[in-house]
Amino acid sequence: MSIDAVLSRIDDQLPEATDRLLELLRIPSISTDPAYAEHCQSAADWLVKDLQSLGIKAEKRPTPGHPMVVGHVEGPGPHLLFYGHYDVQPVDPLDLWESDPFDPQLEDTPNGRVIRGRGSSDDKGQLMTFVEACRAWKEVNGTLPCSITFFFEGEEESGSPSLTPFMEENADELRADLALICDTGLFQSKTPAIVTMLRGMLSEEFTITGPRVDLHSGFFGGLAMNPIRVMSKVLADLHDDKGRVTIPGFYDGIPELTDEVRQQWDGLGFDWQSFLGGVGLSKPAGESDRTPLEMIWSRPTAEVNGIWGGYTGDGFKTVLPAQAHAKISFRLVEGQDPLKLREAFRAFVQSRLPEDCSVDFKGHGASPASIMDNTDPAFEAARQALSDEWPEPAAFVGCGGSIPIAGHFGTILGMNAMLVGFGKDDDAIHSPNEKYDLESFHKGTRSWARILHRLTQDA
Amino acid sequence: MSIDAVLSRIDDQLPEATDRLLELLRIPSISTDPAYAEHCQSAADWLVKDLQSLGIKAEKRPTPGHPMVVGHVEGPGPHLLFYGHYDVQPVDPLDLWESDPFDPQLEDTPNGRVIRGRGSSDDKGQLMTFVEACRAWKEVNGTLPCSITFFFEGEEESGSPSLTPFMEENADELRADLALICDTGLFQSKTPAIVTMLRGMLSEEFTITGPRVDLHSGFFGGLAMNPIRVMSKVLADLHDDKGRVTIPGFYDGIPELTDEVRQQWDGLGFDWQSFLGGVGLSKPAGESDRTPLEMIWSRPTAEVNGIWGGYTGDGFKTVLPAQAHAKISFRLVEGQDPLKLREAFRAFVQSRLPEDCSVDFKGHGASPASIMDNTDPAFEAARQALSDEWPEPAAFVGCGGSIPIAGHFGTILGMNAMLVGFGKDDDAIHSPNEKYDLESFHKGTRSWARILHRLTQDA
Repeated sequence: MSIDAVLSRIDDQLPEATDRLLELLRIPSISTDPAYAEHCQSAADWLVKDLQSLGIKAEKRPTPGHPMVVGHVEGPGPHLLFYGHYDVQPVDPLDLWESDPFDPQLEDTPNGRVIRGRGSSDDKGQLMTFVEACRAWKEVNGTLPCSITFFFEGEEESGSPSLTPFMEENADELRADLALICDTGLFQSKTPAIVTMLRGMLSEEFTITGPRVDLHSGFFGGLAMNPIRVMSKVLADLHDDKGRVTIPGFYDGIPELTDEVRQQWDGLGFDWQSFLGGVGLSKPAGESDRTPLEMIWSRPTAEVNGIWGGYTGDGFKTVLPAQAHAKISFRLVEGQDPLKLREAFRAFVQSRLPEDCSVDFKGHGASPASIMDNTDPAFEAARQALSDEWPEPAAFVGCGGSIPIAGHFGTILGMNAMLVGFGKDDDAIHSPNEKYDLESFHKGTRSWARILHRLTQDA
Repeated sequence: MSIDAVLSRIDDQLPEATDRLLELLRIPSISTDPAYAEHCQSAADWLVKDLQSLGIKAEKRPTPGHPMVVGHVEGPGPHLLFYGHYDVQPVDPLDLWESDPFDPQLEDTPNGRVIRGRGSSDDKGQLMTFVEACRAWKEVNGTLPCSITFFFEGEEESGSPSLTPFMEENADELRADLALICDTGLFQSKTPAIVTMLRGMLSEEFTITGPRVDLHSGFFGGLAMNPIRVMSKVLADLHDDKGRVTIPGFYDGIPELTDEVRQQWDGLGFDWQSFLGGVGLSKPAGESDRTPLEMIWSRPTAEVNGIWGGYTGDGFKTVLPAQAHAKISFRLVEGQDPLKLREAFRAFVQSRLPEDCSVDFKGHGASPASIMDNTDPAFEAARQALSDEWPEPAAFVGCGGSIPIAGHFGTILGMNAMLVGFGKDDDAIHSPNEKYDLESFHKGTRSWARILHRLTQDA
């Protein structure tokens, strides 16, 4: 069987596929705002209907939050599961949008044609690349090439509260040979990429209390302990002068990159000068003996995300405050146990408190890193498929962010997951004027057709 | 001439004197809020009229802000100037007041009778102790004992913007042999005190900028410099592990206490355990080789008064922020030049910035310490007068706060200033439910009569 007819069909049907995406984009399925709950239902309904039009047995499945969409189709060969999410980020500040976020438009830009609108890239546009690939395949061949489970979530942008319970309750139904996830991007906006490692995250909020009440810095200054001084010391101590995190045991159990991965990453030619230069920086700030790619993909971090205490308004107030507060998160890598590190961090803070200060901790999220098994031949097959489609050969890459779903497939369903996506760095996801390149949509659809072909031909 | 008749007159007239104070307290002369400007005028008018009733040539003098009240009376002997302020602090949070802040009441408490209301202690009640002493003196003797200039300000609680221009423009008129200031308190609420050293203050606000925009801590964390990390390092470096400020040259030129002052302070029996214990602390946090009184009176400090950066709302946001901000103030002592230290502090911060970070400074106030010349025989005379009135002998004390007017008398008018006041630590100045002990008002008035007596008899 040749893939060419499917690819031609995708090319021919691009206008109709784009229209379908525009229709989905018009549904304002903002998951975090209860006022849009009905629209989340509508987006799920739309997807159910669209999958059914491909002959897929699909239905909307209730959760305590927004519904899941689950669809199944049987076929020969391997059983794949495809995951995407139909909910979108809020749109404020609305006045920074140059067009209505929910009246998506095709727009010509100096970098080519784009689909402008909320969710165009994250994740409706990406999700539909897979659906459109299946549609073209079906139209050309009459059936799909293998068993596929479609699994769409409506709470990804609001913390996925229903996701793991749903996966646990429906484990047998959802289990497949491999999960495909389309929620990532091209490497440096041009190299097709398969993400094989995602960092985990541990986040903590804490308050250091010194005096019982705010004090006058004239009457008490010099005699009373200032909790901002203590907080500064704690946070300053978190990194040594080589950029290493100093929490005891922080790096224990972290494997070194294999020579193979190291060579591959070196070959990517990561232009860290441009990456940093784009945000006004020039020097890597992490561990001084690590490469920039290691710093963001395979090495853990400690970042203060917020700090506050004392008087922060206009003018001046000579207060010696009672409390200082900080929010801190750690990006975690293979070998690190979030709960063990939470304890280690808390002990680190406790050990730096003078007798007169106390600390309260509030734990936020804790998820380990996800490492995909790219020795699975499906990864090499997909890499070849992507390399066939794009001008640059595809790469196995890391991702500094955290996409917990990838880990859930492993821990809850015992499945490997493969992350492939076609977003670009300038897509402005989570920001005003989000867009998705028409090229990403078109070549993304073609990429999935090629991946389906490679995965089922080789099987 | 005996002082006894004047003291008796003060005792007899206490109810009438209290009524006059209550009348003044009913005028809500909040200087910082433009909505109360008219009431500041009313308070000034009230004082002009009251001074005139004593035969003093008094008038309201305009400034770009709230008016000054200036009054003169001629007599034999030394020429004294008395300073006080008729403006008061705002009253919010109003719901924490147990009575109307501007409907002052006499109230019996377990610690005696108090005058409850905004300004009762700071500074209308204190100001009126001097006026009432003059009234009793005049009523008994027909004249006042010496030349006196009355100088009342209406902007002390809002930064005194008109004060130094007014002093400069009216220097010849205001110049006297000695300034008396009644805006301080009893030492540890029981020992009458003459403040002979006040700390100065230098305050700075600064912003450290790293990346051009807020970044995603997953995509950039570990590679991009976080300005909160830089800020923490700068602030942590400000003190060494012995509590000393590490800014180069910070302690240069600061004299050691003379043996005489040290012995005198040792003799005060400062109960620092109670002082700290009252605010929930137990350990002096300043320079480890200094006594608690030195820490708050004669040694300089560096205190962070406010810090903020990144996400400080509810929940969590994994931002790597573009900026971190802090407000910091230094209490300064004899020998320290605020402007030189401003430069030294800025250089200290600059030298700690990584290449990718920049800093913006915003200078706030800068005033040197004020050291009163207590070799002036007037100080020993006043000390004896106070010792005659109170159960404990009076002491020369320091004050960790900053009262810039004391310094202005020296720098602008070439005069020495003497600070005597009768406030107690629990007066709740600047807070809800401010009060002034009736004993402070009564014995304060008697104290000024005794001081006037000692200063003019000895002259």
